[in-house]
Amino acid sequence: MTKQITVLGAGPVGSLLAIMLARRGHQVALYDKRPDPRGATVDHGRTINLAISERGWQALGRVGLAHLVRHEAMPMFGRMVHDSSGQTHVQPYGKEQQAIYSVSRNGLNNKLLCQAEAEPNVTLQFGQLCTQVDLKRPAIYFTDIHTQATSVVTPDLLIGADGALSAVRASLQRTGRFNYSQQFIDHGYKELTIPAGPDGKPVLAADALHVWPRGHFMFIALPNADGSFTGTLFFPFEGCPSFQSVQTREEVNAFFATTFPDAFALMPNLADEFLRSHASPLVTISCYPWSYQGKVLLIGDASHAILPFYGQGLNAGLEDCMVFDDTLNALGENWPAVFDSFQQARYPNAQAIADLALCNFIEMRDKVSDPRFVLQKKIEAHLHASYPTHWTPVYTMIAFSTAPYADALNVGTRQEKIMTEIMRLPNIESDWSTLDYGPILLAHAE
Amino acid sequence: MTKQITVLGAGPVGSLLAIMLARRGHQVALYDKRPDPRGATVDHGRTINLAISERGWQALGRVGLAHLVRHEAMPMFGRMVHDSSGQTHVQPYGKEQQAIYSVSRNGLNNKLLCQAEAEPNVTLQFGQLCTQVDLKRPAIYFTDIHTQATSVVTPDLLIGADGALSAVRASLQRTGRFNYSQQFIDHGYKELTIPAGPDGKPVLAADALHVWPRGHFMFIALPNADGSFTGTLFFPFEGCPSFQSVQTREEVNAFFATTFPDAFALMPNLADEFLRSHASPLVTISCYPWSYQGKVLLIGDASHAILPFYGQGLNAGLEDCMVFDDTLNALGENWPAVFDSFQQARYPNAQAIADLALCNFIEMRDKVSDPRFVLQKKIEAHLHASYPTHWTPVYTMIAFSTAPYADALNVGTRQEKIMTEIMRLPNIESDWSTLDYGPILLAHAE
Repeated sequence: MTKQITVLGAGPVGSLLAIMLARRGHQVALYDKRPDPRGATVDHGRTINLAISERGWQALGRVGLAHLVRHEAMPMFGRMVHDSSGQTHVQPYGKEQQAIYSVSRNGLNNKLLCQAEAEPNVTLQFGQLCTQVDLKRPAIYFTDIHTQATSVVTPDLLIGADGALSAVRASLQRTGRFNYSQQFIDHGYKELTIPAGPDGKPVLAADALHVWPRGHFMFIALPNADGSFTGTLFFPFEGCPSFQSVQTREEVNAFFATTFPDAFALMPNLADEFLRSHASPLVTISCYPWSYQGKVLLIGDASHAILPFYGQGLNAGLEDCMVFDDTLNALGENWPAVFDSFQQARYPNAQAIADLALCNFIEMRDKVSDPRFVLQKKIEAHLHASYPTHWTPVYTMIAFSTAPYADALNVGTRQEKIMTEIMRLPNIESDWSTLDYGPILLAHAE
Repeated sequence: MTKQITVLGAGPVGSLLAIMLARRGHQVALYDKRPDPRGATVDHGRTINLAISERGWQALGRVGLAHLVRHEAMPMFGRMVHDSSGQTHVQPYGKEQQAIYSVSRNGLNNKLLCQAEAEPNVTLQFGQLCTQVDLKRPAIYFTDIHTQATSVVTPDLLIGADGALSAVRASLQRTGRFNYSQQFIDHGYKELTIPAGPDGKPVLAADALHVWPRGHFMFIALPNADGSFTGTLFFPFEGCPSFQSVQTREEVNAFFATTFPDAFALMPNLADEFLRSHASPLVTISCYPWSYQGKVLLIGDASHAILPFYGQGLNAGLEDCMVFDDTLNALGENWPAVFDSFQQARYPNAQAIADLALCNFIEMRDKVSDPRFVLQKKIEAHLHASYPTHWTPVYTMIAFSTAPYADALNVGTRQEKIMTEIMRLPNIESDWSTLDYGPILLAHAE
């Protein structure tokens, strides 16, 4: 039966879900508080670059958009780690040809919006600020950000794809027995540009994600299609050094020149850019349940905002849509049952990737520059090649498969124990490539 | 320097803190949204009975009220466990003469309010609903619940002692980087009365906390000074049996008659009382920071609402006041430094008692009826008596000392390991009282 469905939030997740639901024959109204991002003014600096991996591609593929997006995406085959003297080494993400893909959030969003608009039963409404949500009806109250005109819609179903600051979730939080958590880390971030060279060509290798790990903080850079890189400094808000201790033009330049000398040389507008923006906070948001009386559902960041350090925030949100689509296929359009089954299946996976993303921050900013860690990664790749049925690295499961995140987390916990044993073997530094790991792997087999 | 201080929330914690601050020479205005509880109409049924233990007594003692409150308190020397056939056995809480004390929340609150009112520089304002908090000034906006008259106060300092649903905390949640979590358990509770006998005497032993553990749920009863008991059913909201499955008069009577036969016989008005009230939810609330710019502070349940299963919610709140008082003594009236030091020291202890309270629910509803658990408690008491410098039970540390909650949690984790070893000893059931535990304790000494 055709339903009137309001999707709040026309970001990548809301847009993708709108397309999927429309193709099932439903009437979908997609609302966003921002102006149409396809217009002239673009909302820069709000989010760090996005990396699409297997889950994202599969979800986009389901509506036929993977090819179009991939056309402009920049493959990154590994992390290029920059030390304090400017020396670099590359840590591959997976096997040869396995890459994650840097995309512009706006570019991706625009393609999804164009496709949504092309669907005969999707309508788009921009500049509509949601001021109130009545979950029971459901009814959503809007104010037009230009005309201040108010309106109300009363669809059959409401999907909150309205991100980490979700208005739908705020309403859910006022119902009884709604579990909710928002946890900030001590770090924030600022985006900084590494422009293309005078010839328009990239000034760093464009097929890697660049990392300048410095213990408690780090700088990273992702390639863009125009030859530039979007850099992001992840830095404590307080302490020394921190956003608090690096405030003037002189302090910014001195800090970058000594801490990231090779990157500093590539950022002519560094101080201007650094001083123009405020540092943005980084939060993990978790909540449950995600649905209300079979009529309202949260999806994407609205239900599980995670830290960006595994490059999975967007991928998890797009995969949500795919899992939701699968659930509809499995259960038919019994919406209360679908909402319930979806949230029960998906919640543990959302929790798992939230945990993994937090752990990966420590790995990226600190461990990747440790020779023991580098050796460990080499051994992992060796195990994956030599014992493919017994060892798949967690990163590979996350980025290059659609295995449930919770399974990857469990495998990772088991692998950590095994790797601790392996790293204790005598002469592991010299003998790692010739050892027989069979007995250790067998001893830990499930 | 004398400060104008507004304390929001005239419960036990707010009242105690108002007295302490007034005695330091400050002008304290104590506000509450409820009418004066010392009036005729009493707000029954909102909270389960309170048990005061060492921390509570010490805090009350600091303002000279311990004696007055103890006069009407009912000492409980142990848990009296009732099995399904009505058989009972007692598990002492500590050494002989060590007891926790059942008090009426209203009785306690009224004594604290009378004392606050008697302080020359405390004013009390009831029926004042806080509608808005401007943290920066700070300014607090009130509406009188009777006249609807609005008012605003702009003190030097604002203390939010306004409980689990704190309005001050709601404002803090809208500031940047405020960590917040609300987690409900699957159980709720209803209060039920066991009246005194026809002779006005208690129908159960009045010197114990009665527990009817039944695996996933339990009924408890605490003695009142008038010979009655306040019973509380902790029960799942959903499933079978649950508040959902026990809804009619017949279902209530049948459920109690078969599940708690000895208690059922003592509750003539059970079904009426059961059907009159809704089940209340049970939540753990955690947040950080507790202060804002050295002008605003959360205290008590507003900063750390915990589950009632360790009987420490009130004790923790009263201890907060004592720790705050100590911090003022140590640092002088440098308020930003005091707020910061207080929250840093107190937060880990609040987290620890929140964890312990959750664990104790499982212990009370399930383990206390297990013969192995009963044996373990006996061995614990024996270790405490025989090796007093090496073994203090966690319950004793929590209820009969003011050792930091976090220390008690750490000790408990260590003791669990030791007890697991002890319970594996051959013939432990028969030999427990004559064994030499010295070597095991020494092996685990810090």
